[in-house]
Amino acid sequence: MKTVTMVAPVNIAVIKYWGKRDEELILPINDSISGTLSTDFMCAKTTIQASPQFKENKFWLNGKEQNFDSPRLDSCLKEVKRRASPSCPILNWKIAICSENNFPTAAGLASSAAGYACLVAALAKLYKIEGDISSIARRGSGSACRSIYGGWVQWIKGDRPTGEDSIAIQLAPVAHWPEMRVLILVVNDERKKYSSTSGMKKSVETSDLLKYRASECVPKRVEAMKEAIFRKDFESFAKITMEDSNQFHAICLDTFPPCVYMNDTSHSISDVVHTYNECKSSNRVAYTFDAGPNACIYLLESETEEFLSVINYVFPPSSNTGYLKGLQVRQKPINKELEMMFQEKKHRPGALKYIIHTKIGDGPRMVEDSLLNDAGLPKNL
Amino acid sequence: MKTVTMVAPVNIAVIKYWGKRDEELILPINDSISGTLSTDFMCAKTTIQASPQFKENKFWLNGKEQNFDSPRLDSCLKEVKRRASPSCPILNWKIAICSENNFPTAAGLASSAAGYACLVAALAKLYKIEGDISSIARRGSGSACRSIYGGWVQWIKGDRPTGEDSIAIQLAPVAHWPEMRVLILVVNDERKKYSSTSGMKKSVETSDLLKYRASECVPKRVEAMKEAIFRKDFESFAKITMEDSNQFHAICLDTFPPCVYMNDTSHSISDVVHTYNECKSSNRVAYTFDAGPNACIYLLESETEEFLSVINYVFPPSSNTGYLKGLQVRQKPINKELEMMFQEKKHRPGALKYIIHTKIGDGPRMVEDSLLNDAGLPKNL
Repeated sequence: MKTVTMVAPVNIAVIKYWGKRDEELILPINDSISGTLSTDFMCAKTTIQASPQFKENKFWLNGKEQNFDSPRLDSCLKEVKRRASPSCPILNWKIAICSENNFPTAAGLASSAAGYACLVAALAKLYKIEGDISSIARRGSGSACRSIYGGWVQWIKGDRPTGEDSIAIQLAPVAHWPEMRVLILVVNDERKKYSSTSGMKKSVETSDLLKYRASECVPKRVEAMKEAIFRKDFESFAKITMEDSNQFHAICLDTFPPCVYMNDTSHSISDVVHTYNECKSSNRVAYTFDAGPNACIYLLESETEEFLSVINYVFPPSSNTGYLKGLQVRQKPINKELEMMFQEKKHRPGALKYIIHTKIGDGPRMVEDSLLNDAGLPKNL
Repeated sequence: MKTVTMVAPVNIAVIKYWGKRDEELILPINDSISGTLSTDFMCAKTTIQASPQFKENKFWLNGKEQNFDSPRLDSCLKEVKRRASPSCPILNWKIAICSENNFPTAAGLASSAAGYACLVAALAKLYKIEGDISSIARRGSGSACRSIYGGWVQWIKGDRPTGEDSIAIQLAPVAHWPEMRVLILVVNDERKKYSSTSGMKKSVETSDLLKYRASECVPKRVEAMKEAIFRKDFESFAKITMEDSNQFHAICLDTFPPCVYMNDTSHSISDVVHTYNECKSSNRVAYTFDAGPNACIYLLESETEEFLSVINYVFPPSSNTGYLKGLQVRQKPINKELEMMFQEKKHRPGALKYIIHTKIGDGPRMVEDSLLNDAGLPKNL
């Protein structure tokens, strides 16, 4: 019997991936760039056990048994086994997979990216794969390829129809920009969310603007963003991040019928960020929104206390316990000048569910405590 | 003393105007197309009086005296006088202008288009101008040029730097498509609205996608829309109308900082329209949104009762009186099949303020009852 347990991070794109040129191989129409988040507060954890005793393959996700015959799981597993040495002794053993997220899936955060990165990293370890595995993770969920590396990561779209050049590379490690912090503002929302897979498919089919974005806008932005990250130029980083988030949601709206992911609270957060930056006469804070209403805020450590004082003022918690999860900071009241700017923007308590405060972190890593017992069954069922 | 009183209509664009190539002359970066609404329920009304007795020019708008030295009023007046015969006896008399809208300005509906069309039509009558006056109305407010004609109207962007070829033309008169109806769904909204003048200026300065929209997308859509109107092809008309509204709001979101005009209620209306059309397996109803949260719905007379039954069900009025203004229809309850589709989309009462039901109508016309008394003062002050 052989067991591997790993954790893998979430990543938050600052240049967005939206649109596939190949649905089957999950090949994107443009490059994207993301920051990888620390696994301390948000991660996927996966145990894979291989045993000659197992009669069949099994898969549990967040405590619920899943059908093993998923095309995406299947293509990851096939590709890992293809790359394994033919002499690998466990290649024909059946496996049990158990995977969990340590953050609420209800938050609508990029859980599939962390999940597939974790699965593929664990499979690669189990079957002793060498070399880049980001193109395998990509087959599970496109943006999962970026969670294979820590720090700042670029997913290069590649040109070949086979997809082997569509891989993630690390632009800079965590230590390059240690001051960077991230706030996830989890928005209370009742709206039914449409999947990003079907949304981006519809965009490719119907949005005229998406073609122009992918071919003309994104290539320039990718270069400018790499430059901003290399030079640790927060001002430029913030502007490009917000512009690209807005353009992505513009494309969603240009889709027919439109995909609307941001709601009024999301737009209020964007407005708070712009107002805050105007007060400071520079871009101190950047928002970005994925395929859901939650905001992800990038900012430097030096700005966190003050910006959090504004968020707490504009979006008061409905109860005082557990509103700020993750890294803790000194809670300070909003200052008079900012209060004047924001007093007409105050929301009813509870417009935000909670806030996760985290930072940039490393890629997947092995851990000790297995999610499966020796019988190949989840310890927590 | 000489007095002219006119009424002029609102128009609702189906191919949107967004972005000027010349701020001073109000020259657009793309053509646009609109339907002119009946003056029965929504119009501007303007009286202009010229008298050798008047000591100075005066201007009242909705009962409040305005500064006469507005650059836009000034350029309309100058252009009309330039085109008048030099022998016109009243050319040097001072004038009093009094203008009113018969619909709430709070509704955030295109009141400036109707207002400037009315002003210019009245000035043209007063000073006996011959020929096209749409290029003069354009100097007051861009989209006002389209309110100079009834029925279906195209504003041709023109190519000359002087702007004399940037004019409106009638594509088809009211009688061409007499079945067409319009519902204005007035959305309750507290958000402060930014002006379309500053919004479109920011879009021209910051949106990469706008250049592509104006040069590549709109020209094709204008041709397809003209074809749809000529052939009375509602299916195509509806699709292009919705696509162009969505693309316009996509451009607003691609603007930096973004201009957000639609709110959650607006998006719910869009969703109701798409769901309704899906139920009917064809585009029976089309939405379009201008620079504000209110929806304008185009639909044929045969569809009004049923679609209104859905709107009344999804957006129940907060009180039963005065919810439906304008053309009255038989109120019928929603049928069972539609109720099943919409029961999870129901809003709290009052999400919509009220509905105006109207139709396509004619251009500006003279009327009798003056807004000014013989002393050149507003009758209602």
